Amino acid sequence: MIVGGESLRPLRPAPEGDALWVIDQRALPHRLHWQRLATPAAVCTAIREMWVRGAPLIGAVAAYGLALQMRADPSDAALSRSAAVLRQARPTAINLAWALDRMQARLRGEAPGRRAARAWAEAAAIAEDDVATNAAIGRHGLPLLQALAARRPGPVQVLTHCNAGWLATVDWGTATSPLYQAQAAGLPVHVWVDETRPRNQGASLTAWELGQAGVPHTLIADNAGGHLMQRGQVDLVIVGCDRVSARGDVCNKIGTYLKALAAHDNGVPFYVAMPLSTLDAGLHDGLAGIPIEERSGRELTHITGRHADGSVVEVQLAPEGTPAANPAFDVTPARLVSGLITERGIVAATEDALRGLGRLP
Amino acid sequence: MIVGGESLRPLRPAPEGDALWVIDQRALPHRLHWQRLATPAAVCTAIREMWVRGAPLIGAVAAYGLALQMRADPSDAALSRSAAVLRQARPTAINLAWALDRMQARLRGEAPGRRAARAWAEAAAIAEDDVATNAAIGRHGLPLLQALAARRPGPVQVLTHCNAGWLATVDWGTATSPLYQAQAAGLPVHVWVDETRPRNQGASLTAWELGQAGVPHTLIADNAGGHLMQRGQVDLVIVGCDRVSARGDVCNKIGTYLKALAAHDNGVPFYVAMPLSTLDAGLHDGLAGIPIEERSGRELTHITGRHADGSVVEVQLAPEGTPAANPAFDVTPARLVSGLITERGIVAATEDALRGLGRLP
Repeated sequence: MIVGGESLRPLRPAPEGDALWVIDQRALPHRLHWQRLATPAAVCTAIREMWVRGAPLIGAVAAYGLALQMRADPSDAALSRSAAVLRQARPTAINLAWALDRMQARLRGEAPGRRAARAWAEAAAIAEDDVATNAAIGRHGLPLLQALAARRPGPVQVLTHCNAGWLATVDWGTATSPLYQAQAAGLPVHVWVDETRPRNQGASLTAWELGQAGVPHTLIADNAGGHLMQRGQVDLVIVGCDRVSARGDVCNKIGTYLKALAAHDNGVPFYVAMPLSTLDAGLHDGLAGIPIEERSGRELTHITGRHADGSVVEVQLAPEGTPAANPAFDVTPARLVSGLITERGIVAATEDALRGLGRLP
Repeated sequence: MIVGGESLRPLRPAPEGDALWVIDQRALPHRLHWQRLATPAAVCTAIREMWVRGAPLIGAVAAYGLALQMRADPSDAALSRSAAVLRQARPTAINLAWALDRMQARLRGEAPGRRAARAWAEAAAIAEDDVATNAAIGRHGLPLLQALAARRPGPVQVLTHCNAGWLATVDWGTATSPLYQAQAAGLPVHVWVDETRPRNQGASLTAWELGQAGVPHTLIADNAGGHLMQRGQVDLVIVGCDRVSARGDVCNKIGTYLKALAAHDNGVPFYVAMPLSTLDAGLHDGLAGIPIEERSGRELTHITGRHADGSVVEVQLAPEGTPAANPAFDVTPARLVSGLITERGIVAATEDALRGLGRLP
């Protein structure tokens, strides 16, 4: 995406092939800070500690992590070990495993001596495929917005949760891709941005992205979406996803399920932007089968922001010693999903429809 | 309530009758800070700026505000003018209007010379009535917890939103009263405390209250409640309310509606602790008729917390200039409410049931 006149992606492979530069998303929105990742261990840390986040992006970054491993040691043992370690960096998003599977399948047939170059090229291909996938998601999603725009004057009111923007992918974003396409097509949209506690990806990433791109938006508390839907102020919900089961259950950022319930209760269409790499074809029941990451309670009891003096500081919100629980994702049952916007078109959140895409056994 | 061995209420009338001391709830949980309110204007500021908050508490505090007015000028004109100003301090909670109506009805029949003493006594009566009301709500709510406790071993898992605790009332709280009664009865409970963005009344007030009282609790993001209910980790939701319509629609802190939807979707009982002073008998459709306060967007874009050096500072969370919308309440339709826990017992959220309490025309 274009930011300040510069074309920007959240990852930038070093031309020498010896490192991956990534935007450290922990520093946003206050600062655009790049980190250089030169080892698989550094890539692991960046994923686990959420310097990078977003299901498609962590897949691409993990692929580069494996490529860095092949540069250091291209043996079969190193390939297996490094893939296993990277796979466990975060548990919920299936794209991480998907990208590593794709890398391993490509590399196992290569002689070790050729693996480093091949791995770097394959990681780049994963990244470019993600860009094409997300552009296609945008093209398929755009008609939804056009249809809503035709119903009445004024901008189409879209609500989104968390950040499924270009920062969560290699480019375009998933949920945001139709919005950026609409903007390019001159179709007015306005986005309600859920702040997305506890890590505030909406307030710090989505609001920043949309602001940089000049897409009209308004930040709201996660609590407010149901009220806005009751008042007819939301035409459409679009969210991303971290894993979708074969029957169409959608695992996404914690709180997505509550918005899906509110959309259903108010007749608001609820769409999920879903690269097919996010499908877990082997899993049927998303509620029972998807591992939900439990993160530190400190993400709730403390928060980081910019002080008036310009420094970025952490402050404590809760009483000293307050216990906190922090499940990072939830699962929205397929029955609440109006449709899945994939790179191959919009399909129903059903096993039959996903089978129709040729993606189920 | 007992805090640090001391009996504490959020308001303390000065023995001289010339001022009201209140806990400045903006300073919690970091500091227990008292403010002295000596004029109706100061009382108005304290309500409007949320030094005090909670529907029952702002009713009692407003009553004292009118009493302070009667001390300064007990004329009919001053009585009407001051009541009108106090009434507009905040728009949503009906208890404010209810308390001022009760004060005016009592004072209009008095000669101006006797109004100051009478007003002070009536404000005290409103406060004491609130204590008795909330104690009764606790007694009526306790059997709900006892019935759930009988179903399986372990503590009863209760989820609450915002702060409907003793800090929101004169004592006991509304939603918390059954919890404190359960504690007194030796019945184990564990409370999931919604942090309640954007003002974090859950994280800063409810967590503090429960911590001081030794009631086991865990802070969660507002986003997490639905997920916990899907996993069977919530036995009961109890919330407070700011205004209830004649047909049982419940206006409460923004986000309550989302929890009611999740409770309904998962078969979790959803109860509202409701002093009858919170009933708006003249209003049928809560969604159409209850004014929803729109507060400053700064409550979302900035937050105050305690720095590691002990200072309490404000930090900015969102990108500079991000627009934010901040509706402070929402309305949960009666169909999602399992029951209203009133001081006269638990009733269905229906017009017939409320009429049965003799509270509807």
